[in-house]
Amino acid sequence: MSFYEDLKAECPTDWASYVYHPFVQGLGDGSLSGDAFRHYLIQDYLFLVHFSKAYALAVFKSDNLDDMRQAAATMDALLNEEVKLHISYCADWGIEKSVLEAVPEASANIAYTRYVMERGMSGDILDLLVALAPCVMGYAEIGSRLAEEHVGSLENNAYGPWIEMYSSSEYQQAAAGAYGQLERVAMSRLGEDYRSSGRWKQLCETFATATRLEAGFWEMGLTGSL
Amino acid sequence: MSFYEDLKAECPTDWASYVYHPFVQGLGDGSLSGDAFRHYLIQDYLFLVHFSKAYALAVFKSDNLDDMRQAAATMDALLNEEVKLHISYCADWGIEKSVLEAVPEASANIAYTRYVMERGMSGDILDLLVALAPCVMGYAEIGSRLAEEHVGSLENNAYGPWIEMYSSSEYQQAAAGAYGQLERVAMSRLGEDYRSSGRWKQLCETFATATRLEAGFWEMGLTGSL
Amino acid sequence: MSFYEDLKAECPTDWASYVYHPFVQGLGDGSLSGDAFRHYLIQDYLFLVHFSKAYALAVFKSDNLDDMRQAAATMDALLNEEVKLHISYCADWGIEKSVLEAVPEASANIAYTRYVMERGMSGDILDLLVALAPCVMGYAEIGSRLAEEHVGSLENNAYGPWIEMYSSSEYQQAAAGAYGQLERVAMSRLGEDYRSSGRWKQLCETFATATRLEAGFWEMGLTGSL
Amino acid sequence: MSFYEDLKAECPTDWASYVYHPFVQGLGDGSLSGDAFRHYLIQDYLFLVHFSKAYALAVFKSDNLDDMRQAAATMDALLNEEVKLHISYCADWGIEKSVLEAVPEASANIAYTRYVMERGMSGDILDLLVALAPCVMGYAEIGSRLAEEHVGSLENNAYGPWIEMYSSSEYQQAAAGAYGQLERVAMSRLGEDYRSSGRWKQLCETFATATRLEAGFWEMGLTGSL
Repeated sequence: MSFYEDLKAECPTDWASYVYHPFVQGLGDGSLSGDAFRHYLIQDYLFLVHFSKAYALAVFKSDNLDDMRQAAATMDALLNEEVKLHISYCADWGIEKSVLEAVPEASANIAYTRYVMERGMSGDILDLLVALAPCVMGYAEIGSRLAEEHVGSLENNAYGPWIEMYSSSEYQQAAAGAYGQLERVAMSRLGEDYRSSGRWKQLCETFATATRLEAGFWEMGLTGSL
Repeated sequence: MSFYEDLKAECPTDWASYVYHPFVQGLGDGSLSGDAFRHYLIQDYLFLVHFSKAYALAVFKSDNLDDMRQAAATMDALLNEEVKLHISYCADWGIEKSVLEAVPEASANIAYTRYVMERGMSGDILDLLVALAPCVMGYAEIGSRLAEEHVGSLENNAYGPWIEMYSSSEYQQAAAGAYGQLERVAMSRLGEDYRSSGRWKQLCETFATATRLEAGFWEMGLTGSL
Repeated sequence: MSFYEDLKAECPTDWASYVYHPFVQGLGDGSLSGDAFRHYLIQDYLFLVHFSKAYALAVFKSDNLDDMRQAAATMDALLNEEVKLHISYCADWGIEKSVLEAVPEASANIAYTRYVMERGMSGDILDLLVALAPCVMGYAEIGSRLAEEHVGSLENNAYGPWIEMYSSSEYQQAAAGAYGQLERVAMSRLGEDYRSSGRWKQLCETFATATRLEAGFWEMGLTGSL
Repeated sequence: MSFYEDLKAECPTDWASYVYHPFVQGLGDGSLSGDAFRHYLIQDYLFLVHFSKAYALAVFKSDNLDDMRQAAATMDALLNEEVKLHISYCADWGIEKSVLEAVPEASANIAYTRYVMERGMSGDILDLLVALAPCVMGYAEIGSRLAEEHVGSLENNAYGPWIEMYSSSEYQQAAAGAYGQLERVAMSRLGEDYRSSGRWKQLCETFATATRLEAGFWEMGLTGSL
């Protein structure tokens, strides 16, 4: 077991609602509507910008050079690679950069990104990493599961490239780096008996809330809500 | 005219959707369902706690003792008076304190409070005060308008006490204090020609976003969403 | 024993250099030069303003209403009482308010206040409370010891009123409140076996550094340095 | 003229005390004692770590992707290149990495880095960039002047490599990038008539204070103080 697995095990229903959300299942079998996906893509651009900032905050809040560098590497990947990839990927779906920059930020988007930032400001580096975990590691789990379940049909699936991106070894390794940092920081701040820590309950609540907000992000895509 | 009035004038549709929201109108004529009001009250408790924190952040970010004291007074009123009043008011509606502390925070609630906090951390004291303004001053406007429009029927309206609270001279004066601080800080940081400032556009966006998130809070009450 | 006593026990030399600093001993026997005391008083004004902000940050970072209210009470006492008392006390020593507001902030003053604020931003509420502790509780220890040691001679000591202020039951109670909060937060976040926590070493370093910076503040008074 | 040049012009004495500090002049003519330089080098290691965090904070506080990327590039250069170069450079001077990590942080070091971080937390991105400017741009000015003044004697100067590093085109270009960002952000937030802004006085004070704290850092090197 691990700190991360234990966090998940404390909110099984929330976690399942996130990783098996109809939006996710629709990505896997290709049944998701293009409009839902485009709405998701447009909002995900603003999401990436704010997640880059959250990782910058993680650099600021780190206790040592190793943690600073791990957070800086994730920030750099988001800010200098993912954002560009995202713009080019959006272009493939007919979404121009000007649209990405003009669209209002959906309430579900605001809720998730600002919640993560607030955990980082109100708490310490561990609170922040726990709030970030459902996104980074959840996407790795989703990408890897969908790639496995739909292994023969990805090339005929309009969402195949999305699944390939998050199941790619590059993404899986980045998520593994974030996983390793979470475990390391949790051990160093809470010790191996972290479940007995007075902080455990609040950390579980942070993880579960961030997970529900991730599910809310898929829901926003499905309903097209702002 | 004033800085605040100019901010409102830049987002007339958003502002109207907030201050004339069906939830508000239902408070005025008493037609709002008790369940909607109770859902709103429960979420408003967590809202008050986070708004107290946002005003604490405003103390931290103030440039001078006057601004520190104005923000501290608002924080004190929220933390030491409003929270208690709210608990007692909730009891009148059959909501026990244990419920207030156990209920999950709705996504619309998270979106608004964390957005305000993030503006405070990312920006300066002015960004924070602008994000806070739609709540403080909007409630004063709503309270005062409803009291006037329904002047003869408040005693037969289950929501009469709510309207009386926000139209009371205590609340109106508190809002006037917040208004005065916003104007003062805007003048001192942007000058009288604030509309020509490079920050004007972003400040308008912050105000409009906070206004939409306030409307989203009423909507959450109406729909009972989490 | 207590968390606070254990923190002190880890840096006995630093603690002694702070609470038995020549500046402190000179306050007790009245031998401190008036110029040194005036330099200290002038810098202490800016110190109080920044410490008020640090307590505002503690409100922002609190996990529950009790901690928010305790930090808010300390902030209120500093901002609305101590600052005024200080201005009036300075006037007794011939220092006008305009001087208090015009003088540059000494490097030793900047070092201490900004270190505390940074611990609060980089860390969690416990890091912040630990950084604040040497000031609040150290002054209570100093005031109480000097009052006892010089019990018969305070009325002939120009620094008698200063000693009386910090040995007063009002101040001692305020410090006891801060002490109680520190113990409570440490227990809730680290548990009773806090010395085994991975955070113990860093918290001891924060406490020792803040203690050295307090001693540096006395030294600044003695040397008149900016 | 430029925003940066105008900031300098408002504190000519502070600026001269910094860029012509005896420590700097001793670097130029090689007369600086090795002990003073080693003390400086050891403290500069911790300084680099905290300045990396300050640039991470600048990423967090940026208004747009361009500013995020500029701040991220500086942070990356500090965290992933300068820190390593510094460790290797210290080794040339007989300072082992274990010493760098064990030495207590000098008060003058704390004062400067935490002041910068606090300006970033209390203010907006412009307050932060102004607090950072004396270091980044001042070192470029010092490096370039010393290289010019001592053009024939650098190879016989033990501090020649230090001067070459800060006069190198790599460093000068990095400083030019930071300069460009400062001007751009100042224009976008204050406009061309920035000297009439209500913020000008406070920004000048931030710049002057940071400049004095930089001079204090040289002084710490000379006196070997902690």
